[in-house]
Amino acid sequence: MSRGDRFLALTGGVGGAKLAVGLAAVLGPDELSFLVNTGDDFEHLGLHVAPDLDSLMYALADVSNPDTGWGRRGETWQFIETLRELGGEGWFALGDRDLAVHVQRTVRLRAGASLSCVTRELNAALGTRHAIWPMSDDPVATIVHTTHGPLAFQHYFVRERCVPDVTGFEFAGAGTAKAPVAVLDLLAAPDLTGIILCPSNPYVSIDPILAVPEIRAALRASVAPVVAVSPIVAGLALKGPTAKMMAELKVPSTAPAVAAHYGDLLDGFVIDLQDASLLETFGDAGPAAIAAPTVMLTFDDKLRLATIVIEFVRELRASVKRR
Amino acid sequence: MSRGDRFLALTGGVGGAKLAVGLAAVLGPDELSFLVNTGDDFEHLGLHVAPDLDSLMYALADVSNPDTGWGRRGETWQFIETLRELGGEGWFALGDRDLAVHVQRTVRLRAGASLSCVTRELNAALGTRHAIWPMSDDPVATIVHTTHGPLAFQHYFVRERCVPDVTGFEFAGAGTAKAPVAVLDLLAAPDLTGIILCPSNPYVSIDPILAVPEIRAALRASVAPVVAVSPIVAGLALKGPTAKMMAELKVPSTAPAVAAHYGDLLDGFVIDLQDASLLETFGDAGPAAIAAPTVMLTFDDKLRLATIVIEFVRELRASVKRR
Repeated sequence: MSRGDRFLALTGGVGGAKLAVGLAAVLGPDELSFLVNTGDDFEHLGLHVAPDLDSLMYALADVSNPDTGWGRRGETWQFIETLRELGGEGWFALGDRDLAVHVQRTVRLRAGASLSCVTRELNAALGTRHAIWPMSDDPVATIVHTTHGPLAFQHYFVRERCVPDVTGFEFAGAGTAKAPVAVLDLLAAPDLTGIILCPSNPYVSIDPILAVPEIRAALRASVAPVVAVSPIVAGLALKGPTAKMMAELKVPSTAPAVAAHYGDLLDGFVIDLQDASLLETFGDAGPAAIAAPTVMLTFDDKLRLATIVIEFVRELRASVKRR
Repeated sequence: MSRGDRFLALTGGVGGAKLAVGLAAVLGPDELSFLVNTGDDFEHLGLHVAPDLDSLMYALADVSNPDTGWGRRGETWQFIETLRELGGEGWFALGDRDLAVHVQRTVRLRAGASLSCVTRELNAALGTRHAIWPMSDDPVATIVHTTHGPLAFQHYFVRERCVPDVTGFEFAGAGTAKAPVAVLDLLAAPDLTGIILCPSNPYVSIDPILAVPEIRAALRASVAPVVAVSPIVAGLALKGPTAKMMAELKVPSTAPAVAAHYGDLLDGFVIDLQDASLLETFGDAGPAAIAAPTVMLTFDDKLRLATIVIEFVRELRASVKRR
């Protein structure tokens, strides 16, 4: 299927990683790179935890835990149970195997390696072959503003279980964060085929990436079309708090509202077949829109959606880029 | 059995911890405190690892691993196996449960707690009741000088498996390290019953403690007798490299040579029944010496030896202190 394509996929957590697996099955390492949200990263127990980088790594390495929807398969919990017995901070469940990734990442960062470099090392050790770039080697922290005050992302997401009502988001450090040069080069390449926004939470998975000025500018300047896959299906988020956030932000929790959120950044938008009736709401001024089976339960589901998205991107690439 | 006794026991690793268990079974928390070697402590994978503090804690909490002779019972190894797969530094086997202790200690130390304070917290969480003091809150690092050059203790002991020939020892930082005030107060107490040097390695378990000037001076000034239990039985170390070190240092690997090493610090010395014939080598100028069953395989062995040692100390205390 290789045609000398070059794609960049932006992704966050577990939802986006499902499409990523499909994309990586269709496109080779020379055809596909990933750009990953690090706004969720946080220092916990003295360790640098990077949940979205790990979700993608575990998914691509096929070691994800299908039962929990996060973490590693065959995981054990001796460490965290003992830490709780010792009176330690136990609200963030770190599996024994997962923990090795955080420790190794932290050791290498303290030794002076960049997050990009450590990410490459970890992925190489787990046998993944596609390039995975953190959105920046500089720290960016997603702050969730809520009716209970501002919360660091993992405090909102894990400790408070997304209960507080969301009022807005802040990406501390994003304004001055530098993007990976290789990603900027890819975005500037005249032969870039397309840019895919995976079906991740737009507010806390994709927006932090877009908040890095170099990335946003490079996306807008790229000759390649930008295509997003809706994380909202039939008014619900398949995974995570996207729909709840939209409701709290007084935005209709619909697929077209996600497209509207991305605005004129988008050239194409993929909604679920269940929402096919909403296709007519996309006027000539908006992105090209198609309906596809976006619910990914099996590997075949991922492969099928990836194939459809890639084909859609190619078609858009062949036509004149709208903006 | 309580008589208002007050004992201080100096101990290092697993060998000393056996007698410690016996002592703690005979003497209550108000009668017995421990002073523990921290020269083995090291920073590993960004964590503060304190092997001797943990050996004693695990032994007193009755969670020691009887199979390995170190670490915790019911331990699993998912973390370290994964770390090795990731290309991390895997030579120091950290169990999943053990790891929680190192992480929690490191978190608390970084938060500004002293090692004494963290040690108290960890022991309280594990339900041990006797006071356990690190020899200092200041860092002291045992350096093993070998024919292959100087080695940090754990590099010698674990990574190099005690293979290099030993030429001497250095306790970096000991000269300026402060002792815990509570321990100095206890040593200065007019009613202190006795000071016990557990059957730990004299060179790398007890000597680092004695290398802290405040401790050495307080031991010498104390009204209480100092009694050591030989870690050498029939020319062999029951555990660890003591005999090997003595041979490399051109010292006979015998119980009397251990007593000679401690010199005039000792008022009493306990050798094994197997070495009873050596009792006659202790002249009037040396410490009072007795033979006892010092090989501790069962809890009853520990209890019996502790009872004998305590009684021996009391007898010495009742007589005039020799020096």
